[in-house]
Amino acid sequence: MLQSQLFSRTLHQDPKDEPSVNARLLSRAGYIDKLMAGVWTYLPLGWRVLSNINAIIREEMDHIGAVEMHMPALQPRELWEATNRWSGQEIMYQFQDHGGRDVGLAWTHEELVAEIAKRAIASYRDLPLAVYQIQSKFRDEPRAKAGLLRGREFFMKDLYSFHTTEEEQDAFYNSVRQAYRNIFTRCGVDAREVEASGGAFTDKFSHEYQVLTESGEDTIVYCPSCTFARNAEVAEGTEKCPNCGGALTRAKSIEVGNIFKLGKRFPEAYDLKYKDANGKDQYPLMASYGIGPGRLMGTIVEVFSDDKGIIWPREVAPALVHLIPVGAGGTVTMEARGLYERLHGAHITTLLDDRADASAGERFADADLLGLPYRVVVSEKTLKEKKYELKHRSGGEAQLVDFDTLISLIRS
Amino acid sequence: MLQSQLFSRTLHQDPKDEPSVNARLLSRAGYIDKLMAGVWTYLPLGWRVLSNINAIIREEMDHIGAVEMHMPALQPRELWEATNRWSGQEIMYQFQDHGGRDVGLAWTHEELVAEIAKRAIASYRDLPLAVYQIQSKFRDEPRAKAGLLRGREFFMKDLYSFHTTEEEQDAFYNSVRQAYRNIFTRCGVDAREVEASGGAFTDKFSHEYQVLTESGEDTIVYCPSCTFARNAEVAEGTEKCPNCGGALTRAKSIEVGNIFKLGKRFPEAYDLKYKDANGKDQYPLMASYGIGPGRLMGTIVEVFSDDKGIIWPREVAPALVHLIPVGAGGTVTMEARGLYERLHGAHITTLLDDRADASAGERFADADLLGLPYRVVVSEKTLKEKKYELKHRSGGEAQLVDFDTLISLIRS
Repeated sequence: MLQSQLFSRTLHQDPKDEPSVNARLLSRAGYIDKLMAGVWTYLPLGWRVLSNINAIIREEMDHIGAVEMHMPALQPRELWEATNRWSGQEIMYQFQDHGGRDVGLAWTHEELVAEIAKRAIASYRDLPLAVYQIQSKFRDEPRAKAGLLRGREFFMKDLYSFHTTEEEQDAFYNSVRQAYRNIFTRCGVDAREVEASGGAFTDKFSHEYQVLTESGEDTIVYCPSCTFARNAEVAEGTEKCPNCGGALTRAKSIEVGNIFKLGKRFPEAYDLKYKDANGKDQYPLMASYGIGPGRLMGTIVEVFSDDKGIIWPREVAPALVHLIPVGAGGTVTMEARGLYERLHGAHITTLLDDRADASAGERFADADLLGLPYRVVVSEKTLKEKKYELKHRSGGEAQLVDFDTLISLIRS
Repeated sequence: MLQSQLFSRTLHQDPKDEPSVNARLLSRAGYIDKLMAGVWTYLPLGWRVLSNINAIIREEMDHIGAVEMHMPALQPRELWEATNRWSGQEIMYQFQDHGGRDVGLAWTHEELVAEIAKRAIASYRDLPLAVYQIQSKFRDEPRAKAGLLRGREFFMKDLYSFHTTEEEQDAFYNSVRQAYRNIFTRCGVDAREVEASGGAFTDKFSHEYQVLTESGEDTIVYCPSCTFARNAEVAEGTEKCPNCGGALTRAKSIEVGNIFKLGKRFPEAYDLKYKDANGKDQYPLMASYGIGPGRLMGTIVEVFSDDKGIIWPREVAPALVHLIPVGAGGTVTMEARGLYERLHGAHITTLLDDRADASAGERFADADLLGLPYRVVVSEKTLKEKKYELKHRSGGEAQLVDFDTLISLIRS
């Protein structure tokens, strides 16, 4: 990847009306660009990060047997009237097409997936089934001033599952919990599984995945000694940990995922039925499971940054190495190009600072702002010693190393 | 891929109000599902085909140095007023958000990309630049009854390039022409490069890529002896081939791609300027290049089908092999599973018909309808001979072959 081709440059000013850390750093570094409140462009560098997150999500979803599909955003009023979610939905963009038909932009897909499931589900032998998508959703958010944390147009991974029995549903639900833990771990964040309200259709808890950070809009109550955690909304009166009896702590957090058991509400609304082993009609149980990949990207930045810029976790970084030539000489440029090719040959993703007109100071400052895990410098000085200067973005001293050591340190 | 997990079954009835071949076959086979006119779900099998097409497009775009990004669909009125494309645009969905702001859904992205380009372009040294995206667009189409050929919500690959000189632009324009030829060839279609109107801002031709088929809504005039082809809209009076003097033929066709030189219209509208080598402000030249991946998928089906179903070209097929166990015996089922794993090990994508309750006749009819390139049958009869039955979807007799021959025939 060449820095000259990223369709952006780093900025010194913050985006308008965007006080959040993720909005400021991602915009200044050239990952995203604001169009209006809650609506952002993913510039090439940001698209790379989001694609890395999406690739992790796809791997973990495929691993538990969920199959990917793609549902549209533009939906007719009638679809939403079946569940009484058309009227009074302030957050849904609703309008008429030129033929006078009422249509809206989907902010979730329980309605449509239950309707489509009628093509797939006829017998108990067809179940369980699980499908997911990663797709753009729309919400007319009144407050959309938190960068990627609260979007009006935003990416969502939504997974839906259909089951014959509670036991079957629980087994799949638990496999999703494991997949979610894997996703958040691979993305570098410590997401707590938190009990939350199950909504109007169950007296059980649903689960949210919450990342602790001062900038969060949620509050959770958790036990520092064990895994217990509960959304403050449903934790009233809980003073001691129900698991271990320890004292509980309150903290701000960002919700990066949630999982819901929905019962039979949606199947009933769309007459989605299957024949059980006795030939009798039954409604399947349904559950839904969400992760916002863009919000997750924003959360990572909220958690991993310092006063100089972003510090990307390894697996989501747009590239592992930021390669920086220092000095105007043709030899330095040529050697940097050569190293760029050798790193590519070693399958190490690299961003080469190939800008013609940047000073050494600008290059170093931009490297810190962009936040790739490793900075490698090629200069007259390093070339004289036939070495390269390697520095971790997360800290520590720069060190002079030869190519083989460079590769093995980056891979370790 | 397991047939039981495709979130669909084959249908005997056609979708409502959809006379086109692609809508009927893709819906009946379970690739897509209609929500309303021009709005479709890509079911897992259809999503696989579209992902294959998108992967080809990405490879060819990356190869010519274009960089991927992602722009939003939801856009403010002011952005479009700068180019006078807000008012009188019947095809644009326009509405107010709950804050009373006029917003619309983008049906193209020249406006936004020119605005964003100001982050990237300051000096002649920043050019040329080329960025693309594959993203959902929206058009309030009055006639949307042609399946994937004319959508109200549809995928678009749109590429935009920026240049200092005509010569530089021509060089990149020609590399895009080659990339487009590669994309269409790899997708199995014979797309003619056709001269078309360049629009209001140039007296030169733009280029369209048209696939000849009776179901097309366009008409082109072309020379059967050489490469000359022109859209009938701009071919009035052209009776003989300007290249070779031969007689011209008229034919119906589907436009699957187009490329436009846009001059300086958009840079001027957004005050997108760069300093030339003399330090003087200049507007860059801009060009845009589109391919509709969904429409391309529909076109492939319009061109490649017979009375039994679809016949996918190799590189876009959802899998290479449709593996069909025939006979109720546990041995057949087990052997089919074993072959499924061995094909996976040989990196041959396979759809296993693992349905419990389908007859041999249903399985064969569905295999023809789904249209994967190879059908492989495992039955008591083939097992007795320690062989498998292989048949091309495109024709020819079935043949009994051993595993090694099977692999080499499929790979050839």
